Amino acid sequence: MQLLLAHGPNLNLLGERRPEVYGTTTLADIEADVAGVANARGAAVLCFQSNHEGALIDALHSYRRVVDGVVLNAGAWTHTSVALRDAIEAVQLPVVEVHLSNTHRREAFRHRSLIAGVCIGQVTGLGREGYRVATNLLLDYLEGRP
Amino acid sequence: MQLLLAHGPNLNLLGERRPEVYGTTTLADIEADVAGVANARGAAVLCFQSNHEGALIDALHSYRRVVDGVVLNAGAWTHTSVALRDAIEAVQLPVVEVHLSNTHRREAFRHRSLIAGVCIGQVTGLGREGYRVATNLLLDYLEGRP
Amino acid sequence: MQLLLAHGPNLNLLGERRPEVYGTTTLADIEADVAGVANARGAAVLCFQSNHEGALIDALHSYRRVVDGVVLNAGAWTHTSVALRDAIEAVQLPVVEVHLSNTHRREAFRHRSLIAGVCIGQVTGLGREGYRVATNLLLDYLEGRP
Amino acid sequence: MQLLLAHGPNLNLLGERRPEVYGTTTLADIEADVAGVANARGAAVLCFQSNHEGALIDALHSYRRVVDGVVLNAGAWTHTSVALRDAIEAVQLPVVEVHLSNTHRREAFRHRSLIAGVCIGQVTGLGREGYRVATNLLLDYLEGRP
Amino acid sequence: MQLLLAHGPNLNLLGERRPEVYGTTTLADIEADVAGVANARGAAVLCFQSNHEGALIDALHSYRRVVDGVVLNAGAWTHTSVALRDAIEAVQLPVVEVHLSNTHRREAFRHRSLIAGVCIGQVTGLGREGYRVATNLLLDYLEGRP
Amino acid sequence: MQLLLAHGPNLNLLGERRPEVYGTTTLADIEADVAGVANARGAAVLCFQSNHEGALIDALHSYRRVVDGVVLNAGAWTHTSVALRDAIEAVQLPVVEVHLSNTHRREAFRHRSLIAGVCIGQVTGLGREGYRVATNLLLDYLEGRP
Amino acid sequence: MQLLLAHGPNLNLLGERRPEVYGTTTLADIEADVAGVANARGAAVLCFQSNHEGALIDALHSYRRVVDGVVLNAGAWTHTSVALRDAIEAVQLPVVEVHLSNTHRREAFRHRSLIAGVCIGQVTGLGREGYRVATNLLLDYLEGRP
Amino acid sequence: MQLLLAHGPNLNLLGERRPEVYGTTTLADIEADVAGVANARGAAVLCFQSNHEGALIDALHSYRRVVDGVVLNAGAWTHTSVALRDAIEAVQLPVVEVHLSNTHRREAFRHRSLIAGVCIGQVTGLGREGYRVATNLLLDYLEGRP
Amino acid sequence: MQLLLAHGPNLNLLGERRPEVYGTTTLADIEADVAGVANARGAAVLCFQSNHEGALIDALHSYRRVVDGVVLNAGAWTHTSVALRDAIEAVQLPVVEVHLSNTHRREAFRHRSLIAGVCIGQVTGLGREGYRVATNLLLDYLEGRP
Amino acid sequence: MQLLLAHGPNLNLLGERRPEVYGTTTLADIEADVAGVANARGAAVLCFQSNHEGALIDALHSYRRVVDGVVLNAGAWTHTSVALRDAIEAVQLPVVEVHLSNTHRREAFRHRSLIAGVCIGQVTGLGREGYRVATNLLLDYLEGRP
Amino acid sequence: MQLLLAHGPNLNLLGERRPEVYGTTTLADIEADVAGVANARGAAVLCFQSNHEGALIDALHSYRRVVDGVVLNAGAWTHTSVALRDAIEAVQLPVVEVHLSNTHRREAFRHRSLIAGVCIGQVTGLGREGYRVATNLLLDYLEGRP
Amino acid sequence: MQLLLAHGPNLNLLGERRPEVYGTTTLADIEADVAGVANARGAAVLCFQSNHEGALIDALHSYRRVVDGVVLNAGAWTHTSVALRDAIEAVQLPVVEVHLSNTHRREAFRHRSLIAGVCIGQVTGLGREGYRVATNLLLDYLEGRP
Repeated sequence: MQLLLAHGPNLNLLGERRPEVYGTTTLADIEADVAGVANARGAAVLCFQSNHEGALIDALHSYRRVVDGVVLNAGAWTHTSVALRDAIEAVQLPVVEVHLSNTHRREAFRHRSLIAGVCIGQVTGLGREGYRVATNLLLDYLEGRP
Repeated sequence: MQLLLAHGPNLNLLGERRPEVYGTTTLADIEADVAGVANARGAAVLCFQSNHEGALIDALHSYRRVVDGVVLNAGAWTHTSVALRDAIEAVQLPVVEVHLSNTHRREAFRHRSLIAGVCIGQVTGLGREGYRVATNLLLDYLEGRP
Repeated sequence: MQLLLAHGPNLNLLGERRPEVYGTTTLADIEADVAGVANARGAAVLCFQSNHEGALIDALHSYRRVVDGVVLNAGAWTHTSVALRDAIEAVQLPVVEVHLSNTHRREAFRHRSLIAGVCIGQVTGLGREGYRVATNLLLDYLEGRP
Repeated sequence: MQLLLAHGPNLNLLGERRPEVYGTTTLADIEADVAGVANARGAAVLCFQSNHEGALIDALHSYRRVVDGVVLNAGAWTHTSVALRDAIEAVQLPVVEVHLSNTHRREAFRHRSLIAGVCIGQVTGLGREGYRVATNLLLDYLEGRP
Repeated sequence: MQLLLAHGPNLNLLGERRPEVYGTTTLADIEADVAGVANARGAAVLCFQSNHEGALIDALHSYRRVVDGVVLNAGAWTHTSVALRDAIEAVQLPVVEVHLSNTHRREAFRHRSLIAGVCIGQVTGLGREGYRVATNLLLDYLEGRP
Repeated sequence: MQLLLAHGPNLNLLGERRPEVYGTTTLADIEADVAGVANARGAAVLCFQSNHEGALIDALHSYRRVVDGVVLNAGAWTHTSVALRDAIEAVQLPVVEVHLSNTHRREAFRHRSLIAGVCIGQVTGLGREGYRVATNLLLDYLEGRP
Repeated sequence: MQLLLAHGPNLNLLGERRPEVYGTTTLADIEADVAGVANARGAAVLCFQSNHEGALIDALHSYRRVVDGVVLNAGAWTHTSVALRDAIEAVQLPVVEVHLSNTHRREAFRHRSLIAGVCIGQVTGLGREGYRVATNLLLDYLEGRP
Repeated sequence: MQLLLAHGPNLNLLGERRPEVYGTTTLADIEADVAGVANARGAAVLCFQSNHEGALIDALHSYRRVVDGVVLNAGAWTHTSVALRDAIEAVQLPVVEVHLSNTHRREAFRHRSLIAGVCIGQVTGLGREGYRVATNLLLDYLEGRP
Repeated sequence: MQLLLAHGPNLNLLGERRPEVYGTTTLADIEADVAGVANARGAAVLCFQSNHEGALIDALHSYRRVVDGVVLNAGAWTHTSVALRDAIEAVQLPVVEVHLSNTHRREAFRHRSLIAGVCIGQVTGLGREGYRVATNLLLDYLEGRP
Repeated sequence: MQLLLAHGPNLNLLGERRPEVYGTTTLADIEADVAGVANARGAAVLCFQSNHEGALIDALHSYRRVVDGVVLNAGAWTHTSVALRDAIEAVQLPVVEVHLSNTHRREAFRHRSLIAGVCIGQVTGLGREGYRVATNLLLDYLEGRP
Repeated sequence: MQLLLAHGPNLNLLGERRPEVYGTTTLADIEADVAGVANARGAAVLCFQSNHEGALIDALHSYRRVVDGVVLNAGAWTHTSVALRDAIEAVQLPVVEVHLSNTHRREAFRHRSLIAGVCIGQVTGLGREGYRVATNLLLDYLEGRP
Repeated sequence: MQLLLAHGPNLNLLGERRPEVYGTTTLADIEADVAGVANARGAAVLCFQSNHEGALIDALHSYRRVVDGVVLNAGAWTHTSVALRDAIEAVQLPVVEVHLSNTHRREAFRHRSLIAGVCIGQVTGLGREGYRVATNLLLDYLEGRP
């Protein structure tokens, strides 16, 4: 089984950007965490990050026959990208949405998720830990087991 | 470790009410599923359902020293109850919100969740399966492990 | 044939509360009126009133195999209760909504009915008389006759 | 006693227009139903349909001394015509509003009724049957009897 | 000089309709008042009333080369008719808008005037007297004199 | 093959009304243009204009078995008439919506089209030329050819 | 008989400020116009202008026993001052609202008039001429004559 | 003289729930404070708290002949309960609304008070102290003295 | 101890302005009432009223070292003045907001209080009596006693 | 004459993505259709698709001197991209907007078109056929002929 | 060259009012800063502060022939004063808007600037430093040099 | 010291696109202007423009250790890109926002700036000159001098 761990804009700066909100964990730390969880359950993880909306859409298209599901932190696009929503719907992969902070407690323009309607679940506000539970959630879903 | 599986209004009719939306699974089936997942990981499950908002709030208050976390399908109160939100905040237990159907695809008054801001995660639209992944998500969170 | 006549919050005070809006008729008067209409057409009437939303939902659940239809004045819950709406939908009974005053002429928060979409008809602004026509309307519907 | 059965725009095409929403019943069928109900209770029925808002207003004005009440399906004007509302208020006749389909389940611009505030009752979503119950409701109201 | 005194829907019932709001003055009274004011200043008055929006638009088109200005009580169309607004703009006649009651103190849907932007003035809430001042206002404007 | 070219309110004044917005072309010019295009492709054109909403609805009903499609400039009714929308849906003819000016650049109340959802295409802002392309668009559609 | 001609903020600059919108007429020109109209009908005119909201309110209070009515161009306060509205209501004088330009054609925050509901009429978009017709309108009203 | 001190949902947890917002004072402390103030002025106090909306409404109904006024902290129901508002209006007792924190500085859904319109005064943001001033305010009102 | 009793625009006309809403009590009556309450508790009262927003702000600035608290009826500025709100915040004095009528039952633009967020309490709808209870409320707060 | 056929995000998956909405036609099929129509009328077609907003803007810039007009299905960007709107305006080419499905019948966020205001026409809801009529519409426009 | 440094309400208390938001700098400090910057570039500075909106408008009118431009911190009026906006437009002086704090991060009613549309630039959130950069910005603009 | 001059979508066409709004100045002209200002004050300038949102975000990330501040005209992304806002916040560089035209006077969707809250100042509506004053503003800020 193979998973895609995908990140949207500015998440490459994780650990540098507003640490009081996002903490000092880096993207590499998170990728290691997710790989750890997945490998322990026999799954491989592909990692992808881009600041280009089109690149993320291309990636979802390309990987759609290669991976079984996606753990996605779409960052700011969560709130603005209908194109990303369409891509998720188009590739017909199960997607779990992750947010490091609780977006419902920040600016109003972060309260609407355009992609929630096409994802199978959300994990929000757990920081780094959230990726691990999201990975398990996705694997549980894929394995169809409790 | 002990979990509370709590259900809001009308969910006692599960399996009878609008099966084209919610399926034929009964509340007892779901309780068995959740207990199965939890027991396999060494946790016990208390079950609670009420059509009385006050009763659910009382239950959260009473169980707050007895259980370690909550799997909650608040049903219609998700969209209307500030009191339930306050109760979740007050008891300081981690809560995972579950919805059988994808509420974002139904009537507009079901699009706003008043409790999402105080829960640690949401699992939506997976039907019966959603409870199992929610239970694992909660246990992962409580065990602080990948 | 058996009908449920159900009333929501504060309607137990009918005849005492704001008589300039609601008149001096009591709940007992209305229950007698409805029983009169129903009995004359060979139907029995069960009466129920509660200030507890949960109690009304429980009642709908309990009576759903006992009664053939409901005459309902949900009072303030008309405007705030998604749970009551779900209950009406769940029990799959025909419900006629009654309001003593014309709610469209009062405060703005009384203009939206959350339950209208799941009822078969509304009778508004006829005062005490409205219950009698609502009862006939429900019986006509149940008898499938002109 | 004499009733007016009035229909607004496009209802002359009943039975031809979107049968999946409105069914195959024609306007003549409905007029016969209403006459049946009314005649059985000793009342006569005048029928009127127009695609001209002004013609319906003229009719209400003209008939206001001739008929005792109105069964009205205003169709699309329900949602847009303040002039029709004023006409109903002006003629001081009791009016029962009928809709074949449940307008609260269709497009958002069909959710607002500009005439509900000046009618004595609404019957919605019962299809052809709705006219019969509306006729009885109006007659009950006029006879002031249960 | 010749003026058009035009009335929209239901104003033919003036004196009968909701006298507590509009008083007992009839349309004929008003037409006499306006003719009185106009004749005294050497102008003739044509009178027109219709419950058909199209008829009023036709009238504006027809009279546009015959009259020098219009005193208009558009009634309910004030709030709903873009077509009437376009007609006023199209005929390029000065129009004074009159309302018997102060529409800003009634239902919210009467607060917006779609035609105010293309009229030269409004006279509101003066009852019968308002027509006389509106007529003088129009004549002052047409005579370009103080 | 036969087409209906239908115009809504005030378009009879074309060439007189606000030439800086609509130009000096008359309705007769446009009717000649459309006939020219249609005749060259072997189709006949029926022309209709009215300032009465009901007359346009009647016309659509009457012609629905006579014509194969409609080129429609509904003018102001585009923004206010649910009845016209229902008529288009009811007659089940393909309709192409034309506007001389770009309505999206004018007042806010002209930005919403109530009929766009039931038309097969829109041609906006091309002035007189727009009718010719609309006619070709309709014929292409009817002929099912490129 | 005595009238108050009152002006709000920035109108002292009339003739200097945005002449493409307001023209080159000065406040003195307007005061002379209004005096001319009033004197010819045997009335005197008091003139007042201030950039201080409080000063205008004070003036209305002071003059309320001295003048019989007010011609008022409240300028920007039209859109923002509830205090001015209350003052107009408090002094119980008939007030005619004048605007040089048609405020409905400018920025959205100029579309709402907080004072329209307490004035007897509005004259808008007639430029300098508007004051003369407003003065006549006020005098007609005060004289209660056609 | 006798007062009712009533509390809504979650206030039984006072002193445990979010102490950074509400402080460490318990409900018993507040009840003692209010009794102290009331007793010193010769009044008795009845105390009531419930997490059930219906129970609070029942209490208001039951006590309406027993107490002379109410000090009420309705908690979350302040923002959502039309039924509670109706109950306050129905029992015709003077009610003073108290909030520990300043609700206008918290989430947007706490800014609207559905009950303010039927209470005689509000005391907000004074913490524990607020109950004492509210009690004095109520007693002053009941004694009709300065 | 010294208090400021401050009034906003038009309140100098109290007793003259709209007596059906505000009664016949004059400002002098109220000032005497407040002085009576305060003196009886050993406090002095300074009185201030202005129709100039700036004058009230100046007064708050000037008195901020002289008085211990403020009883304020800001009148219309309650709903429009951010500057007054800033002044209250700046002077760091406890302020009790008073309104003679219940502003929540009047026009919509009177429903928002811009200053409620920076006051310690509100007393609304008690008429003249309200000032006395407000004065006691402020003194209780200042004395920090029940 | 040369045309650009441009497609926005996810349209490369046409035929795979949600076939119940978009059908099984592929992008290649559509490109062949458009080329067929254009070639038959002596025009060439350049094809472009990208999931990168910037790439589409670059393409419009680059081709602006090479092509005479554009047939554009902007997909999700229709609803979110001001940048694309600016690009269309900047390149000053005639653009015809095409949508396979009727976007007015889908989610609310698909109802607003940011680009409609700068296009010469729209063809919506005709599926594959829509491109052929759009191509003819564009060629008619470019040829300035009926 | 001469500049006006103008301040709106409550800014006279600078250094006393909410120092956690605005710091301890006084208005005199800022006036010295601005004079320092301006003098160094050969310009003089006039200083003005008022809590009276009318006084600021008067000042802009009076100084409009004396100064070459304005550095303006309008404080709370930024968000509420159409009159100030009109004054800025009327005097035809270049104005630079300064705010000590970032108003976009405070209460919602501070997010709208009514004057931004008539100013040449804004400097926000730089505290005391902001005035110096605003002064240079204004001088650069006046000198028309880089 | 080194600055980044960054431009968003379509600004590469400056001088070609809608010259009536933006003038004939090219991007090269502006880059020369900014370099001239900066060089004269001893600072170097790096220039960047892209039609790809991701490319601008990448550039901000890459240059964040190389430049000391940014002059940014984000074009259309100003109104739609939360990702760009996050990037500005993440790189912790001072950014001055420039717009050639006054965006507050154009379409409504250009009135909201998503990036204003994270920039230190805005210069709007000065055309080409605006870049020079923005550059000086940024340098003043960086030099921390008047």
